[in-house]
Amino acid sequence: MKYNVQITVMPLKDLLDPQGKAVLVGLNNLGIHSVEDVRVGKHITLIVEAASAEEAKSVAETAAKQLLANQVMESFEISVN
Amino acid sequence: MKYNVQITVMPLKDLLDPQGKAVLVGLNNLGIHSVEDVRVGKHITLIVEAASAEEAKSVAETAAKQLLANQVMESFEISVN
Repeated sequence: MKYNVQITVMPLKDLLDPQGKAVLVGLNNLGIHSVEDVRVGKHITLIVEAASAEEAKSVAETAAKQLLANQVMESFEISVN
Repeated sequence: MKYNVQITVMPLKDLLDPQGKAVLVGLNNLGIHSVEDVRVGKHITLIVEAASAEEAKSVAETAAKQLLANQVMESFEISVN
């Protein structure tokens, strides 16, 4: 069966996020002042062929750890639909 | 009140996603063959000061349309926590 797996990779909370800061400045320049903080990460959608949702999640976890997320600087979350 | 707003920006379904294709090749090279398709987009977290969740969502929508998403090539989804 095919599973649609969503992986969100975000910079760790304690680290600076220069891209997020740039977006915040950009929003201020556009006149949007009610945004107080911005963090920018990646969203990855995988279509996984697996026998169960657990197996699909496990494949995605391996992919995230080995390729998609740098765990020194980023954390990731996985959800399976 | 402060709202945590999540924006997911993904390449449109009908368009090629070279970054996703590169990740797919990378996963195959790592021995992960059960992934059939990959699409890579952006995940943006905003902290918005607003009177209501609706107002926070509206600010995020303006930010997405004006700065974060290129609607010719990308679609976006917003959720407010």
